[in-house]
Amino acid sequence: MKASEHLERLSAQLGRLPGVGRRTAERMALRIARDPGGLLADLEAALRGVAEEVRCCSRCGSITTTQEDPCQLCTDPRREGSLLCVVEDPSDILLIEKSGGYNGRYHALMGRLSPAGNTGPADLRLEDLLRRVEAEKIQEVLLALNTDVESEATCSYIRERLQGRGTRVTRLAAGLPAGSGIMYTDSVTLARAIKGRQDL
Amino acid sequence: MKASEHLERLSAQLGRLPGVGRRTAERMALRIARDPGGLLADLEAALRGVAEEVRCCSRCGSITTTQEDPCQLCTDPRREGSLLCVVEDPSDILLIEKSGGYNGRYHALMGRLSPAGNTGPADLRLEDLLRRVEAEKIQEVLLALNTDVESEATCSYIRERLQGRGTRVTRLAAGLPAGSGIMYTDSVTLARAIKGRQDL
Repeated sequence: MKASEHLERLSAQLGRLPGVGRRTAERMALRIARDPGGLLADLEAALRGVAEEVRCCSRCGSITTTQEDPCQLCTDPRREGSLLCVVEDPSDILLIEKSGGYNGRYHALMGRLSPAGNTGPADLRLEDLLRRVEAEKIQEVLLALNTDVESEATCSYIRERLQGRGTRVTRLAAGLPAGSGIMYTDSVTLARAIKGRQDL
Repeated sequence: MKASEHLERLSAQLGRLPGVGRRTAERMALRIARDPGGLLADLEAALRGVAEEVRCCSRCGSITTTQEDPCQLCTDPRREGSLLCVVEDPSDILLIEKSGGYNGRYHALMGRLSPAGNTGPADLRLEDLLRRVEAEKIQEVLLALNTDVESEATCSYIRERLQGRGTRVTRLAAGLPAGSGIMYTDSVTLARAIKGRQDL
């Protein structure tokens, strides 16, 4: 293979990363190739570390090590075992944990229903979810999905699938973000905040 | 090492790529970790290809394969051997080649003088440049550096170092970019375009 072909191959892979366009990927590949003993070697070592030791938990889908599967979030006896929070992506679990506002179990779908992106129910961890709700005697499923159209559709789909099982299905409250104001809030959010108004 | 430490290590390396901030690097690392058999493996293979087969030419610094050192640009007998184009980065060579406007040899400095970035003359391939000018009997050195303050200072430094050797030192013309207009041109560029006005 020619040098340019190796570079093209690398930039094609870099272009799969979030937020990286074709031109950026080309610049990245050149930056890497320029420094084989430095950045390239360091990147390779870091990737190898992740490849060898980092996995998604086979139960909840969150990031864990190969030694810890199921992960600590799944096995920690201090966490509420009958409450299950459903997220789209493992990274959402990290954010929710950081918020400190949740103490149950998790289930990452690894995406959302997307006709445009060719993602159907079989591409998500939905059957696993139904199995877990049954096996772990889940009393409440909290849908912590995003708020765009595809995520809303995914919420509806899950609610339907869970109907008649005696499991409470909830979702994150819609409303004003902290530190914001009515002036900066779009009308859909405002309407939802009014509908979901809370006692003070 | 814990999973989070592996991820931090990977995102630290990704953060060294051009245009990647801390948050983007974290998202990239998670995207990679989520897909060990896919993106991670593909990235590793692409990096390995570059590591094993891509090098900077030991003479001019451009991107070449380990089998071709010196590179084709250095050895092609049809290229003008007494004309040497000095660039900051190997990627600049690709751009100049693409323009089709140059047919001499190249020399990549691998950076520019930058007091702020702690890059002095010894960190650049400057001694190599002086050696080559001598050994290859270079008659003209074309400085194809950028046009910001640090690059201008680098130009001045090289011009001084080459003085008294009987080598002509030129630089890229400053003027209006193609497809643009006077209205969109800043006053420094305009002043330079007037000073360097060309016969029609």
